[in-house]
Amino acid sequence: MAHETAHAKSARSRIHRLRLCFSALNADALLLTHLPNIRYLCGFTGSAGILLIDHSRATLFTDSRYTLQARQEVYDATTVIAPHGLIRAAGEAMKARRGVIRLAFAPAQLSVAQKTGLQLAAGARLRWLAAPDLVERLRAVKDADELTRMRRSARLISDVWTDAVRNVRPGVSELAVAADIERSMKLQGASGPSFESIVASGPRSAWPHARPTPKLLRKNELVVLDQGAILRDYCSDMTRTVVLGRSTNRVRSLYNAVLHAQEAAIAAIRPGVSAASVDAAARKVFKQSGLERYFTHSTGHGLGLEIHEMPRLGRGEESLLEAGMVITVEPGVYVERLGGIRIEDEVLVTAQGAEVLTSASREFLEL
Amino acid sequence: MAHETAHAKSARSRIHRLRLCFSALNADALLLTHLPNIRYLCGFTGSAGILLIDHSRATLFTDSRYTLQARQEVYDATTVIAPHGLIRAAGEAMKARRGVIRLAFAPAQLSVAQKTGLQLAAGARLRWLAAPDLVERLRAVKDADELTRMRRSARLISDVWTDAVRNVRPGVSELAVAADIERSMKLQGASGPSFESIVASGPRSAWPHARPTPKLLRKNELVVLDQGAILRDYCSDMTRTVVLGRSTNRVRSLYNAVLHAQEAAIAAIRPGVSAASVDAAARKVFKQSGLERYFTHSTGHGLGLEIHEMPRLGRGEESLLEAGMVITVEPGVYVERLGGIRIEDEVLVTAQGAEVLTSASREFLEL
Repeated sequence: MAHETAHAKSARSRIHRLRLCFSALNADALLLTHLPNIRYLCGFTGSAGILLIDHSRATLFTDSRYTLQARQEVYDATTVIAPHGLIRAAGEAMKARRGVIRLAFAPAQLSVAQKTGLQLAAGARLRWLAAPDLVERLRAVKDADELTRMRRSARLISDVWTDAVRNVRPGVSELAVAADIERSMKLQGASGPSFESIVASGPRSAWPHARPTPKLLRKNELVVLDQGAILRDYCSDMTRTVVLGRSTNRVRSLYNAVLHAQEAAIAAIRPGVSAASVDAAARKVFKQSGLERYFTHSTGHGLGLEIHEMPRLGRGEESLLEAGMVITVEPGVYVERLGGIRIEDEVLVTAQGAEVLTSASREFLEL
Repeated sequence: MAHETAHAKSARSRIHRLRLCFSALNADALLLTHLPNIRYLCGFTGSAGILLIDHSRATLFTDSRYTLQARQEVYDATTVIAPHGLIRAAGEAMKARRGVIRLAFAPAQLSVAQKTGLQLAAGARLRWLAAPDLVERLRAVKDADELTRMRRSARLISDVWTDAVRNVRPGVSELAVAADIERSMKLQGASGPSFESIVASGPRSAWPHARPTPKLLRKNELVVLDQGAILRDYCSDMTRTVVLGRSTNRVRSLYNAVLHAQEAAIAAIRPGVSAASVDAAARKVFKQSGLERYFTHSTGHGLGLEIHEMPRLGRGEESLLEAGMVITVEPGVYVERLGGIRIEDEVLVTAQGAEVLTSASREFLEL
């Protein structure tokens, strides 16, 4: 293994750290069904997989579509091609062991049907041990290799947006703008968008999660553009809002409120503060300008292999920020009929505080 | 309600038919967590929703991001914005009812955590009744409005492919080809791809589910192009395989075997035959030419609102085909190092037999 890659090495240390976590729970094994967790731990990117980790080995169960792919991708786990279903194969592997098995699992990632199937295949020796978020907590803090990738992914989406906004003008459809953004990501090496790009114009911009439609952009409309790319497996996420034509004072003052809320939230970020306190910093700005009721979602979320990861920056989220976390800060206001305004950037929590990874201008653009 | 749309009418009849199904199970209510099922029944397209249907009403639980969107989209259900989580709100709604509630649910679509949460919020009155695939079975047979959409979606992907293949040549990257295909879908009105387009060249084409990479296409390589669009909510799915340059006899004979397998499978399709028998018809052709071991997946799958729906055309699938089902027929061979060949079309099961909906030429293209 003289030529072991940095990737494989970090994966080995991930499985090692994970074993420490589930040992602390007095578990004999950990069952993983969530595909991004599986990818994080053993490199497999297929759409069907179960990973079973005990104290001495890790086994990936997948199906025959992935025989060749698994051979190339998987490190630090033995691959088993399951002819009669992954759940059955994983259950039977546990049945082959002696004695009681205390099996740690993530209750939000195991369906009732999967649990029943495992129970059936593994027999009476199984003891279930609910252990949510073990891998997610590891994943929340990025290692050096991951940070390199996330910086590149953030830079890519910033560049893509800065180019794309030149083509945002009345008469172009939301879908055409989204198509250009996603094409441009791919031409710059992204494997695709990290979520369906949002291009929402006019009253539709008041829907925080609007999907692009054939609707044409019109003069005097707000346009929310929310997009992210996947580059070498890592997601980016950035939102900008522009106005077509000259904005009203009302719209300009809403924009400034959102920008101030974002700045206040970013200024609140440092290791050791709670996720909720960052959300509260944004919310306070809106409260001062009487806009709180228009801010209908939480302030941000972690991201990495997935577009939504831990931590969530919202009310009641008492988890503490740590250096190495990458989070979005994306306050917004949504006013029925008038439209919506959201500004979103990716922020790395550093020992000193916060570093903004996305770089497109936040100046209010009147196009 | 003089202007009730065709869409709302068919949704009403869907909920009505669903009530007949769960009444037959002697259930008091049905809990739905799978978003495409929710969209099918009440029109909601957001990313957070739970639908609870009892004998007199349907209630959609969602969160505050979707207040405005739900108001515009949802028909035949009352929307509840849940401030403390959807599961808790759904559980509390059940708690407000008198007596025991026999609750039907889909075990594959409810997580262990959701079940625990509902139990906690609804209290001891809940009796769980596993009822898999109730909505999926309705969805497998498309109504007239759905068939119109699926025909259009199939036509769109056929046109997109026929255009895109002109730009497939040595020196272009897999990602660039995928980007052009997906952009072209959107410019023709699709909301996006129905799955991440596969453009897999050379040895990578032997991975049935390869993701496009920056790898450049090279002379004498096989290229598998598998793509689908979502048009007015409905998915399409079509695969073609081309060769760059002149093919060897070996490749040509593999291509012909795949084409014959597909033709045999399509010829086997009619109402009343089992899904397994269509798979067997394709498999038989490969067996005759000694290629069976290279055909590593099942022959096809239903599609509609989702890219994979019932029925699955595979070994042991004893469900019977019905008129109105739309399925893919996509045999393939995957030979390590040499590459893969897959040909996939969408087929509507008709009273008479089968109608192929995708129309791009299946002639072997040497580009």
